[in-house]
Amino acid sequence: MAITVVGSVAFDSIESPAGRCERCLGGAATYFSLAASYFTDVRVIAVVGEDFGAEEEQVFASHDIDTQGIERAAGKSFFWQGSYLENLNEAKTHATELNVFGSFEPRIPDSYRDSEFLFLANIDPILQRRVRESMPQVKLVAGDTMNYWIKDHKPALLEVLKGLDVLLINDTETRMLAQNSNLVQAARSVLGMGPRMLVVKHGEYGATAFHRSAESGVGAKPFRAPALPLEHVVDPTGAGDSFAGGFFGYLASQPDITPAAFRRAMFYGSVMGSFTVERFGTERLEQLSRDEIDARFDLFREITHLD
Amino acid sequence: MAITVVGSVAFDSIESPAGRCERCLGGAATYFSLAASYFTDVRVIAVVGEDFGAEEEQVFASHDIDTQGIERAAGKSFFWQGSYLENLNEAKTHATELNVFGSFEPRIPDSYRDSEFLFLANIDPILQRRVRESMPQVKLVAGDTMNYWIKDHKPALLEVLKGLDVLLINDTETRMLAQNSNLVQAARSVLGMGPRMLVVKHGEYGATAFHRSAESGVGAKPFRAPALPLEHVVDPTGAGDSFAGGFFGYLASQPDITPAAFRRAMFYGSVMGSFTVERFGTERLEQLSRDEIDARFDLFREITHLD
Repeated sequence: MAITVVGSVAFDSIESPAGRCERCLGGAATYFSLAASYFTDVRVIAVVGEDFGAEEEQVFASHDIDTQGIERAAGKSFFWQGSYLENLNEAKTHATELNVFGSFEPRIPDSYRDSEFLFLANIDPILQRRVRESMPQVKLVAGDTMNYWIKDHKPALLEVLKGLDVLLINDTETRMLAQNSNLVQAARSVLGMGPRMLVVKHGEYGATAFHRSAESGVGAKPFRAPALPLEHVVDPTGAGDSFAGGFFGYLASQPDITPAAFRRAMFYGSVMGSFTVERFGTERLEQLSRDEIDARFDLFREITHLD
Repeated sequence: MAITVVGSVAFDSIESPAGRCERCLGGAATYFSLAASYFTDVRVIAVVGEDFGAEEEQVFASHDIDTQGIERAAGKSFFWQGSYLENLNEAKTHATELNVFGSFEPRIPDSYRDSEFLFLANIDPILQRRVRESMPQVKLVAGDTMNYWIKDHKPALLEVLKGLDVLLINDTETRMLAQNSNLVQAARSVLGMGPRMLVVKHGEYGATAFHRSAESGVGAKPFRAPALPLEHVVDPTGAGDSFAGGFFGYLASQPDITPAAFRRAMFYGSVMGSFTVERFGTERLEQLSRDEIDARFDLFREITHLD
């Protein structure tokens, strides 16, 4: 089943101890789409500027990602500059230029309207809500957000949460959203805000899914997916969006969303995140094969399962 | 098979957001012994002062822990005072009084000499080495250490590492010991110092075992054990020592040390650590049943396994 994703398509300049990458293709919707494209059909809603050319278009096209919903506007694309020189787990932002993204008005092509899955990547919650309400037919809606929206746009964000099936955020965001430093208590509080499932991403330590009991169909117990202990982390940018793409892409590829499918989706999320950080930007994510993905899935099973 | 453990038996005064505990029974050898006692016979080498009375003796006796090697000296027992008020993951030390521990000379009772397993809890590496050399017959030796010894007593510590089969330390200690911020590279470097296996404890995120390839018999891949997402963490003191006790106690209870036994030992380590933090000091660890332990083992399997 097809996924529609709304979010940023951007250029990133990134510096890490492994080197640098100037104006790489980036953005949450880009990482999400590429990761999900190995599992199912993906359709993107975004806005780009005149600097988005044939080369960038080709990255999407070569993964059969539908870009009809990517609007071309006069001006430059969203641009982010950051570094991980002191801490590979947390980016230091040097510049954020919204450019054409500053006046983004998501428009949904008619051909996207039969999508059964919707992913609201990290953008202004007002836009997330507008897209959600424009696609009432979707079966499953997942979304992401960040500290900026939690801190300064909470009322709008709370409206979005009411319409989500799955929220995917990190430890810090979970604690900030719930205003509670205990992760389990914070998770319960977030689940009370709307989502049926909360996936907390722990970076190098994997991720934990929390869910409301009977309603979710997967029982009241959490589920932990590992991360691969990596010898060479080149660039952590996009790992969380790639997790979301692997998680949601796998779910959308399944005939039924069973508890077992959710568990496997958590593993596929971790798998896609682990590939992304191996190279700068989307480089690794662009070159994968389904065989490589499944081999790493098997490795993740092996390093966590008792027998 | 019996384990001999050398380490501290102490009194701790602990403050956490959940309350406080004045002069609770503590010390690495205490937590280790109690955790391991649910799996196998445990013999302790330590020194205590005149404040160690019948009540404390009874804690060991009620778990059939052999205390012949606990020397009674004139003066007070080792005392530690700490708090977790700002950060449940890291203790703030307010006082450390070595007392009788300052002149500790480990003496090994003859009845301990047929122990096949030896655990060197976190004490002066000079003492760890002396005990190791006095017990040449042991089959498997594991040990712990801490930032203080890594920083200021590294040559003595490196001598201890040469004689270890398994080293159990946390993320920060691993990176400090290897002087490398990448955990995988740091782990390889530590394995080059002597131990055949390194268990890195991640606190609330579980633990990862790294090992040298063929030699260890468990292959070159790491293994990850989870931690239980806990709603109420009362007191993290002793969680790492309890992990070590569960891990090593389970191994010692097995007829053969197979790769599967190592994996299960990692889970039992996490299980014992997860119980310890539920109450102050050793309270929870004192009251367990093997059924409770195995139920939590099954829960850990359930929250990490795909099917």
